[in-house]
Amino acid sequence: MTNDIDRVGANSVINKSESDIVISVDAMGGDRGAVAVVGGLHKSASANPDIRFIVHGDETVLKPLIAKRKSLTGKCDIRHAESSINMNDKPSLAMRNGKGTSMWNAIDSVKNKEAAVTVSCGNTGALMAISMLRLRKAPGVYRPAIAVLWPSRNPSGFNVVLDMGADVRADAPDLLKYALMGASYARNGLGIETPRVGLLNVGTEEHKGRTELKEAHELITESFSSNEYEFVGFIEGSDLPSNKVDVIVTDGFTGNVALKTGEGTANLISDLLKEAFRHTPFSRIGALFSYTAMQRLKKRIDPRRVNGGVFLGLNGTVIKSHGDADATGVAAAIQLGYQLAKLGFSEKLAARVASAAAGGEDT
Amino acid sequence: MTNDIDRVGANSVINKSESDIVISVDAMGGDRGAVAVVGGLHKSASANPDIRFIVHGDETVLKPLIAKRKSLTGKCDIRHAESSINMNDKPSLAMRNGKGTSMWNAIDSVKNKEAAVTVSCGNTGALMAISMLRLRKAPGVYRPAIAVLWPSRNPSGFNVVLDMGADVRADAPDLLKYALMGASYARNGLGIETPRVGLLNVGTEEHKGRTELKEAHELITESFSSNEYEFVGFIEGSDLPSNKVDVIVTDGFTGNVALKTGEGTANLISDLLKEAFRHTPFSRIGALFSYTAMQRLKKRIDPRRVNGGVFLGLNGTVIKSHGDADATGVAAAIQLGYQLAKLGFSEKLAARVASAAAGGEDT
Repeated sequence: MTNDIDRVGANSVINKSESDIVISVDAMGGDRGAVAVVGGLHKSASANPDIRFIVHGDETVLKPLIAKRKSLTGKCDIRHAESSINMNDKPSLAMRNGKGTSMWNAIDSVKNKEAAVTVSCGNTGALMAISMLRLRKAPGVYRPAIAVLWPSRNPSGFNVVLDMGADVRADAPDLLKYALMGASYARNGLGIETPRVGLLNVGTEEHKGRTELKEAHELITESFSSNEYEFVGFIEGSDLPSNKVDVIVTDGFTGNVALKTGEGTANLISDLLKEAFRHTPFSRIGALFSYTAMQRLKKRIDPRRVNGGVFLGLNGTVIKSHGDADATGVAAAIQLGYQLAKLGFSEKLAARVASAAAGGEDT
Repeated sequence: MTNDIDRVGANSVINKSESDIVISVDAMGGDRGAVAVVGGLHKSASANPDIRFIVHGDETVLKPLIAKRKSLTGKCDIRHAESSINMNDKPSLAMRNGKGTSMWNAIDSVKNKEAAVTVSCGNTGALMAISMLRLRKAPGVYRPAIAVLWPSRNPSGFNVVLDMGADVRADAPDLLKYALMGASYARNGLGIETPRVGLLNVGTEEHKGRTELKEAHELITESFSSNEYEFVGFIEGSDLPSNKVDVIVTDGFTGNVALKTGEGTANLISDLLKEAFRHTPFSRIGALFSYTAMQRLKKRIDPRRVNGGVFLGLNGTVIKSHGDADATGVAAAIQLGYQLAKLGFSEKLAARVASAAAGGEDT
């Protein structure tokens, strides 16, 4: 539970000006605990002088960890929480009993306008459930979605893919909303002026796929007549990393399987590559000569660097970091939140979705 | 249309003994045309002295191509077909108008017991539709499935994944049949005595996922009490290449997206790897030293080498090769058919599925 005395006490040592970006962080959620999260705060604060944190969790754990990092002096407002959500807690249970946990309080900091963005490494289902309960769905949105950045051949290096697992199903009107929200994210988050939107299917011909996809194809075609986005129609799994599209729309079940399949494939190849380099004395010499190039490649496809699923369709921005994120991963998720907060993304997105029915333009 | 005079004429020059394995081939289906298919026949005949082919297609095209390959002398029975199915033909149209095409006739060679297996690079939807029409579904099967081999960390090097796109949906009883058929394929095709079967979902906890998956979880748990297979429960996309399972069960929509996502990811990494090796003079030297190791890795994950989706749940074995398969790819699909034919797979599978309701053992 947040405690007013703690809050005042912590606030008294924070140096904050009007233009600072405040990020609310659930420090207890991840598989690696508060150490990884505070490591992420340190990296993030070192890179962004105008960042400030409200850090939710067990203060007996957090205080010494934060005190050890000079980069965090005067930048963290620690808010004690008695308990935290477990990785295996059911979302319904978390909603009923989650009050006073670090996750709940972290979301409330955005609800109360104290912070621009919340970041948590915790249980995805619980985070979405509590976010929906506390922040409420944006007007016109029935199913919120989780959008991630997918390494691609595009000049920006990424495509936006949604939904990655907020809901296991999506009907045609939901998919239309995902298209609008995804395009707005690509425009405001990646700076792509006219994002190309594709609908994930098992083939590119219009007669293929499930009924709701054919309906969604029609809905998006009609909606995208305003020239502000381009609808490229159906795309296939092989197009996820392509430069044929900027935004890929799918239901949360398919998106989640695709994301994890991509990660699993990348990990398998990476392990086989290491094995190949170790295989003969010649290849071991090859590995030495290729070291820098391989490090560059590794960085390019490192899942930690693109860490952060953005919850779209709520009254406030919530970012889900990978459960097993290390300090680099947590810093990447915070960096994403920082950029979106600077852009005023949450307000722009809300305006965009609200005006969709009227066929309005992105602000 | 097959012509009896052609058939007799061609049969008169074929050298065939009782123990030979006869493969029926649709030579006109793929993106690369008959040249790639005949190239595949050549590779396949060179590797397997006891293989014979019934080759369906335009004989004015096929005869000179086959005559050029000494390895194929006396091994090909060419059956002229007036027409062929296009890659973009709708399955329903192909079913109505497909009679006399190379694909239709290739399937009929299995129906008429002239060949043990059919191989086609053609349109997947049309191939499944005509196969269902001509071969009929096996007793007890409502939805047939396409099974593929997925490069994995398992000792065999592969996992079996199904359905990869026979049908965009699957209900709980279908998923149970997929589990039984996939386990039988892993046992008879890969030689795994007690295959471990997993159900693809967005999380491993039992409360997660879609309703039909929870139902299927119960059905498979009950059915797998006989110890002949092991049911490991829900698995995630990241487990597709893992050694936690041998058989992965999913609906055809999700399976198709996962397959293509895996391919797309592998292609992206492969291109980035080439780029990394070219990047500096040092890395170019590294590439030289690593050449053999890299070729081995390439071979290990080369999609052409695992080419071939097996249609399960029909009265006869049909193998779908990649549409853009080259000679190496076609040869891999034929090799798979050859192995399954040698094992009498079709009969074993039919017996397994038919006895499933009675809780019988695999033959």
